[in-house]
Amino acid sequence: MDLAQGVLGGDRRAVARAISLVERQQPAERDAARELLCALYPHTGQAHLVGVTGSPGTGKSTLVNQLARFYRQSSPHREHSARVGIIAVDPSSPFSGGALLGDRVRMRDAAADPGVFVRSMATRGAEGGLAHATFDAAQILDAAGYEVIFVETVGAGQDEVAIARSSHTTLVVEAPGLGDEVQAIKAGLMEIADIFVVNKADRQDADQAVRAIEMMLEGSAASDFHNCGLGGIIWGVPVCKTVALDGTGIPGLVAHIESHRAYLQQSGRLRDRELRRAGAELETLLQRELFSRFLSRLEPGKLESMVSSIASRDLAPYEALKELLGS
Amino acid sequence: MDLAQGVLGGDRRAVARAISLVERQQPAERDAARELLCALYPHTGQAHLVGVTGSPGTGKSTLVNQLARFYRQSSPHREHSARVGIIAVDPSSPFSGGALLGDRVRMRDAAADPGVFVRSMATRGAEGGLAHATFDAAQILDAAGYEVIFVETVGAGQDEVAIARSSHTTLVVEAPGLGDEVQAIKAGLMEIADIFVVNKADRQDADQAVRAIEMMLEGSAASDFHNCGLGGIIWGVPVCKTVALDGTGIPGLVAHIESHRAYLQQSGRLRDRELRRAGAELETLLQRELFSRFLSRLEPGKLESMVSSIASRDLAPYEALKELLGS
Repeated sequence: MDLAQGVLGGDRRAVARAISLVERQQPAERDAARELLCALYPHTGQAHLVGVTGSPGTGKSTLVNQLARFYRQSSPHREHSARVGIIAVDPSSPFSGGALLGDRVRMRDAAADPGVFVRSMATRGAEGGLAHATFDAAQILDAAGYEVIFVETVGAGQDEVAIARSSHTTLVVEAPGLGDEVQAIKAGLMEIADIFVVNKADRQDADQAVRAIEMMLEGSAASDFHNCGLGGIIWGVPVCKTVALDGTGIPGLVAHIESHRAYLQQSGRLRDRELRRAGAELETLLQRELFSRFLSRLEPGKLESMVSSIASRDLAPYEALKELLGS
Repeated sequence: MDLAQGVLGGDRRAVARAISLVERQQPAERDAARELLCALYPHTGQAHLVGVTGSPGTGKSTLVNQLARFYRQSSPHREHSARVGIIAVDPSSPFSGGALLGDRVRMRDAAADPGVFVRSMATRGAEGGLAHATFDAAQILDAAGYEVIFVETVGAGQDEVAIARSSHTTLVVEAPGLGDEVQAIKAGLMEIADIFVVNKADRQDADQAVRAIEMMLEGSAASDFHNCGLGGIIWGVPVCKTVALDGTGIPGLVAHIESHRAYLQQSGRLRDRELRRAGAELETLLQRELFSRFLSRLEPGKLESMVSSIASRDLAPYEALKELLGS
């Protein structure tokens, strides 16, 4: 298959076409997309997947851009300069394309380097569609030989957590002074963080933010969970300070990412993460496929008439469920 | 059924027990929960559902608290003081309970009033579980006679959009100076906003935020969409300034909510919203139920062994899907 060969050979245009194919999720292209992903799959598993998540306004895009540059220019922890893939999950919709222009302009720096592949994925379609397309895109970049792949998401929705669960190393990015509601988000992301980053650390309340996170880590069950490495090898979640705009703290953060990678390999937890990723991906695929097959078997107009009866209060949603599926 | 009668009679303890029942999502209680919801359903449809969403740090909880107080103390647009329900969708997890204490303390003010029912829902379980439990809780409050129900969510994930889609009126809350990444969120929420709120409007860059939103509204397809009311009745998305901490702008915001309610009724779009709600709810239920029934029919260990083969790259995810479901 031509496209698969192009991807495996690292051809950028083939990679771009492959990602577009899986992202479009067109019924007519379904078989082609699945065939491609099946052909690539045995060649995946080489890349280190780094999830980057956190609240809006924390400077994640700039941070990822700087991390990519650092991995390109100097990879002190690897034998050669790593090829870097970036998948930016875009919460905007097709209606409002272009709103992320600011982010993409900041990314241009990294994108001009042929060793970096940047792709933005938009939220679309049914529930789980975004997580699904992101899994597929990461596999394509992995098969194409990108060795470090950053997946950047915004927020703390189910999709974001699913995407973080499918990473090897998850960075949770905070910024000082975003208000106390941010604490809630931090709590939601506590279990998935392998490394905390306090970005914009040149602000005066940065140390306060670091201490707040450290206190939460000490007090939380999550920290116990993270600390129970196998074979006596233990991972304590570090809290790093960075100023992504001028690159401060980036080398230290890369050192933490690389030491988390080494920890996963040496402790045997890499296999756990791979199982978690595989489980998350299969579950997402199954949910979508079961629903779309069910819809295609339904008599035309059936669902619409039930929705109308529910809206009129003539039928309860659970009664409709029983009628459609049996009790 | 006792519990249903208690809810319909407006008994607070019955309402609390009913919401706990649907929130727990325990298999052993499944039938009882569904029976309850079916019994209540014919008595729903009276409440006005107001979704409140936006980025962290925008002060949504304080705003909802103030809106609830205003509806209680003076409902100039209604014949009597409205009973108010508040569902706060909590992005934190069972592991880190308590992180939202700050919010809940701010809510206490409203919660001490017997005409207000406040409930916090936590993210849990499978995809769509949160949206699902939130739909159910809103139905219980509706059946119990709460006339205005606020559903407060954080972020712009699929779940949050699903919850907003199931509201009659959706407020998107912003605050000045949260950085330009917030623009991206705003773009994602543009289509679902019926009313924009710039909270913390005592900050100096508030007018700038208002103008930015107004420009986006003018330029976007979303504004055309919102403006195509039926029968010549048109809804232009307003941008309101509030200072939730001291109550500034709350009466004006309530006037907009009530005029959106009148618009929905007079334009015939209320029926569209009800159909959209019913559709979103049935879809969520079907997806969850199809998946859980599929899992229960599977031979024990089958999924685990496939996940293991996927993690080892012996089996592609789409090959597993084919094996499980046929092509």
